[in-house]
Amino acid sequence: MKNAIVEKFNQRADAANSLLCVGLDSELNLLPERFQKFQTPQYDFNRWIIDQTGDYTAAFKPNIAFYEARGVQGLIELEQTMQYIRTEYPEIVTICDAKRADIGNTNRGYVEWIFDRMGFDAVTLHPYLGGEALQPFLEREDKASIILCRTSNAGAGEFQDISANGKPLWHAVAEHVNGKWNARGNCMLVVGATYPDEMRTVRAVAPDVTFLVPGIGAQGGDVAAVVSAGLDSEGKGLIISASRSILFAIEPAAEARKLRNEINDARSLHASH
Amino acid sequence: MKNAIVEKFNQRADAANSLLCVGLDSELNLLPERFQKFQTPQYDFNRWIIDQTGDYTAAFKPNIAFYEARGVQGLIELEQTMQYIRTEYPEIVTICDAKRADIGNTNRGYVEWIFDRMGFDAVTLHPYLGGEALQPFLEREDKASIILCRTSNAGAGEFQDISANGKPLWHAVAEHVNGKWNARGNCMLVVGATYPDEMRTVRAVAPDVTFLVPGIGAQGGDVAAVVSAGLDSEGKGLIISASRSILFAIEPAAEARKLRNEINDARSLHASH
Repeated sequence: MKNAIVEKFNQRADAANSLLCVGLDSELNLLPERFQKFQTPQYDFNRWIIDQTGDYTAAFKPNIAFYEARGVQGLIELEQTMQYIRTEYPEIVTICDAKRADIGNTNRGYVEWIFDRMGFDAVTLHPYLGGEALQPFLEREDKASIILCRTSNAGAGEFQDISANGKPLWHAVAEHVNGKWNARGNCMLVVGATYPDEMRTVRAVAPDVTFLVPGIGAQGGDVAAVVSAGLDSEGKGLIISASRSILFAIEPAAEARKLRNEINDARSLHASH
Repeated sequence: MKNAIVEKFNQRADAANSLLCVGLDSELNLLPERFQKFQTPQYDFNRWIIDQTGDYTAAFKPNIAFYEARGVQGLIELEQTMQYIRTEYPEIVTICDAKRADIGNTNRGYVEWIFDRMGFDAVTLHPYLGGEALQPFLEREDKASIILCRTSNAGAGEFQDISANGKPLWHAVAEHVNGKWNARGNCMLVVGATYPDEMRTVRAVAPDVTFLVPGIGAQGGDVAAVVSAGLDSEGKGLIISASRSILFAIEPAAEARKLRNEINDARSLHASH
C-alpha cells in the first residue's frame, strides 16, 4: 500500500523524469550578496532557487534549522517559502527536514505546526523513542513520516552500528518501520548516500519503502553507488537530495539539471543490467 | 568537572532547597479560560505560573512543541517567556525541551536559536546521530546538552532496550555520554521517572552526571523511587520535572510546593539510610 504522498512523489518523479530533491538549506551567511540586502532574504533566495530548479525537481526539502537560526523572522520566511511552493508548484513534494520526535501528546504540537500550519507533505523523525511515541505522526495517513535509519554523517555508526544478534541498530530500525510502523504505507526511511552497502541491506529489508537520501554533493556520496544500491523494483524508491552543491552553484538550474541527468544515467545503466 | 550550568543548578537547588523543574508545557487549549482571551495567552499564562512557582523551583523547562503548534506567534511568546525568566529569575536554570539533533553544520542553526537568541541554559538532544554530529552543542562549554538516554514513554524500549552483549542501548548511551561526550562537564542525561530500575543503573554508569527526570505527575512516575534510584553522592544530581500536574492544578503554587516537599522528604529519608 502506498499513501498519497508516496504516490505524489512517484507521479512527479515520472512527470519530471527526476528523483532529485533540492535541499533548501538557505543559510543566511551563505546567500549571494544580492539577496542579503532584501527584507526577506531567505524567502527571496528560495523563490529564485525554486524557479531555477523546479523543472528538474521532484521534492523540495528545507532544513528548518537554517530558518530557526534567525528566530521568528526565519520561520516567517519558511512559511512564505512553503506558501510559494504550494501555490506555484503544488505537484512537487515538500519535506520538512526537522528531525523531530517527542513523546505522544507532545508530538501533536509538531504535527500541527509542520503538517497543518505550514502544509508540508512529509517530515523527518528520530526513531529513538519508538513507534508508540510517534503515533501522532504515523496516524496521519495523508502525510509521510520519514524515519532516520542510517544517517549520512561520518560518526553515524556510534550508536547506529551497535549490534544485537548480528544486526546493527539501523537494520532493526528498517525492520520495525517496514514491518510495524508502515501499516498505512506512509513511512519512508532516511538512508545516507555515504553508506551504499548499508543502503543495499535496507533495500532488501524494506523493498517497497521510499528512501530519502542525503549526502550527495558536498558530503561526497556517489550517485551511481546510491542508484545501484537503492532503486526499488519499479526503478524509483529514492528521493536523492542535494543542497549546497545546487543552492550555491553559479548556475543552480544547470547544476540541478546536471544532477538530475546523472541520476537518470545511472538509472538507465542499472535497468540495462 | 562541572560546568557553569551544572553549578547554576546546584546553587539554585541549595538556595531554594528544591530539585523541582516546572515544565512549561502551556498547550493553548488547556489554559484556564481567563487566559484564552489575551493577546499573548501562552506568555501571560507562563508569567503567572513562573511567579506562582518560582520560589519552589530550580529549573523551568518549556517544551517547544507546544509553542510551535501555534506557529510564529507561539515562538514569539516563548521568546517573551524566556525574556521574563532571564530578567526576573536569572538564578533559575532554563531548559529548552526541543529534542533536536541534526548533522554537524546544521546543528549550528539550532545552537544559535536556542542558546544565543533565546538564551536557554540547556537543550535536550537525541543521541541517534552520535557525538560527532552533536559537536556544535557539545562544544558550548557555557551551556548544557541533555541527551535522551531512557525516555519516560511506555514504548521507550522498542529500540532503547535493544541489547548488545547484554547491555541495552540506553546503557550504551549513558556510557558514551559519561565517558566520551562529557569531556567539558556540560552533559546531562534524560532518564524517565517511569523506569527507576534503569535509572539506578544509569546512576552507577554515570555517578556525577545530572539527570533530567520527566514522567512525574501525569505520567505516573513515583517520587520516592526516583530519589532512591537517582540521587548522586551529594544528594542532588536530579532535575525532577512535572508539567501538567502543576500547570493545570487549581493552585499551582501549592502544587509546586507540595511536590518540592515530597521530593525533599524522600531525600531526607534516603540520606538517613
